[in-house]
Amino acid sequence: MQTLRQIRQVVEEVVRGYARPRSPEGLYGPAGYIMGLGGKRIRPVLCALGYALFDGRFPDRLWSACLAMEVFHGFSLVHDDIMDEAPLRRGQPSVHVRWDVPTAILAGDVMLIEVYDLLRRACLPDQLDLVLQAFHRVATSVCEGQAMDMAFERESAVAWDEYLSMIRGKTAVLLGGSLEIGALLAGADPLSARETGRVGEDLGLGFQLEDDWLDVFGDSERTGKQPGGDILRGKKTALYILAMLQGSTAQKNDLETWFGRSPSDEKVRAVSAIYSETGAAAAVLERSEAFFRSAGDRLDRLPVRKEGCDLLRELTIALQGRKA
Amino acid sequence: MQTLRQIRQVVEEVVRGYARPRSPEGLYGPAGYIMGLGGKRIRPVLCALGYALFDGRFPDRLWSACLAMEVFHGFSLVHDDIMDEAPLRRGQPSVHVRWDVPTAILAGDVMLIEVYDLLRRACLPDQLDLVLQAFHRVATSVCEGQAMDMAFERESAVAWDEYLSMIRGKTAVLLGGSLEIGALLAGADPLSARETGRVGEDLGLGFQLEDDWLDVFGDSERTGKQPGGDILRGKKTALYILAMLQGSTAQKNDLETWFGRSPSDEKVRAVSAIYSETGAAAAVLERSEAFFRSAGDRLDRLPVRKEGCDLLRELTIALQGRKA
Repeated sequence: MQTLRQIRQVVEEVVRGYARPRSPEGLYGPAGYIMGLGGKRIRPVLCALGYALFDGRFPDRLWSACLAMEVFHGFSLVHDDIMDEAPLRRGQPSVHVRWDVPTAILAGDVMLIEVYDLLRRACLPDQLDLVLQAFHRVATSVCEGQAMDMAFERESAVAWDEYLSMIRGKTAVLLGGSLEIGALLAGADPLSARETGRVGEDLGLGFQLEDDWLDVFGDSERTGKQPGGDILRGKKTALYILAMLQGSTAQKNDLETWFGRSPSDEKVRAVSAIYSETGAAAAVLERSEAFFRSAGDRLDRLPVRKEGCDLLRELTIALQGRKA
Repeated sequence: MQTLRQIRQVVEEVVRGYARPRSPEGLYGPAGYIMGLGGKRIRPVLCALGYALFDGRFPDRLWSACLAMEVFHGFSLVHDDIMDEAPLRRGQPSVHVRWDVPTAILAGDVMLIEVYDLLRRACLPDQLDLVLQAFHRVATSVCEGQAMDMAFERESAVAWDEYLSMIRGKTAVLLGGSLEIGALLAGADPLSARETGRVGEDLGLGFQLEDDWLDVFGDSERTGKQPGGDILRGKKTALYILAMLQGSTAQKNDLETWFGRSPSDEKVRAVSAIYSETGAAAAVLERSEAFFRSAGDRLDRLPVRKEGCDLLRELTIALQGRKA
């Protein structure tokens, strides 16, 4: 197993195995459905790369941990979609729409329970306690991030540091945890594994900020997203937060007024223009790039295998390449 | 620590510690609320008794596992109340009513995540894998039981074996698992621990069937329940299933007709009478007692400490004593 493509293939195979029909269908059907909807599988790939940073042979048990990270991500999507009343996920009906809310709650629960069994199976006896500790930090952080996200929806102004804490908790820590757990499974000492996790956290922050930028300014043919989707949904992304912090009083008033209006192409154009004119667009890209640089610097200081580093850099560049 | 009362005191203290205010309040407040609503704390007490069956000294780490079993129970109550649209829990507003559905989903999730950390803390290094395996069986079974329960609501007839599978999965297996995990923590070999778990499963089935009977025929001053509450809520308990299996065509038609009507004292009286006349009431009690006998027989065959057995029998009698 030498290339990113080979790692991705194994991950897809393992995910397909998880998404197979299982009885009772009412409980496991939705789990298979959400996992079968696709996605970039970044978390399981990062888990394998965390391993590759410290050891060159991929044991079978590793894939169980990779799957655990993706099932955890799937669990959080199922429950978040209920909480956010999101009718669609990757262009298909969300689980609570395709089935109903009770079914979606229970399916998410059983997925979360399976995550722990998958992690257990991945561990050598002396790794289990450490891996569970690392995963507990990650899972708690994802819940705290989601709680912050829901609280922000009710607030008019959010400070930049608070916003960063939210996306760190909700997204970046899970990417970091995937790398960290992979490293622990390869026998990395806990401190090096933790620092490897911080590389993933920085990458996660970089990706998330870039995603916010791409949603408005990206080439929709490359990103596969609806242009201005966040604006149409009235989502307060990094662009909104920074525009409200950097803009003039007139620009801030304009932005709030446009956000209060119903979705239209005109709204997307007007809000995009405010994001550019306030300097928020440039600032978000700049901050995203700073996190990518920080990830690279951290990686340079770690005592890791060159082959693993190369794979991680290749993944990062592939993901960054979505920018026009 | 020699008496049931002392064990209960420690359990209450540990639960109070868990229910303390924690930040962010929006995430952990509901967890503290549901855990503070009281209850018989049967699961944590059973976990301590499972330990006492194999070892006489209670180490501090044991209480973390006891708490894990109660937090898992609390998690299932929070999510079940959303799924069942139950407005009240122990006479107080359910979490999703006191707060809202998103908050209740997320609070349940973080409680489930904490269960695993509590279990981890309770284990000696060589116990963690076994305890997680046992708990995985239990947690999966609770979800499958809940899935069956929801499916039954949509069906007109449920076979007795199916009903038994449902209450076994949803309730009995967790009581059994509490005993089993206590036993594993005391160093019991996995087979003895598993058989100890089956004692708890039988007790759980006995209690659940007895509960169904008590709801209609119990002394409400002793049970603390609204008389005929299950009938008023239109819940298909063991009494309903057996009446539909044993009753004459006329009795079954009557029962279905009454179940279709809105709640009233008259409905409670009429349905109670059908439960008695069909012999369902006597049959439920009989089957409950058979499970208690089976639990006792299993316990007699296990190589366990007499002091532990005495405590478990004392608990069983105290719980059975709710019968008039």
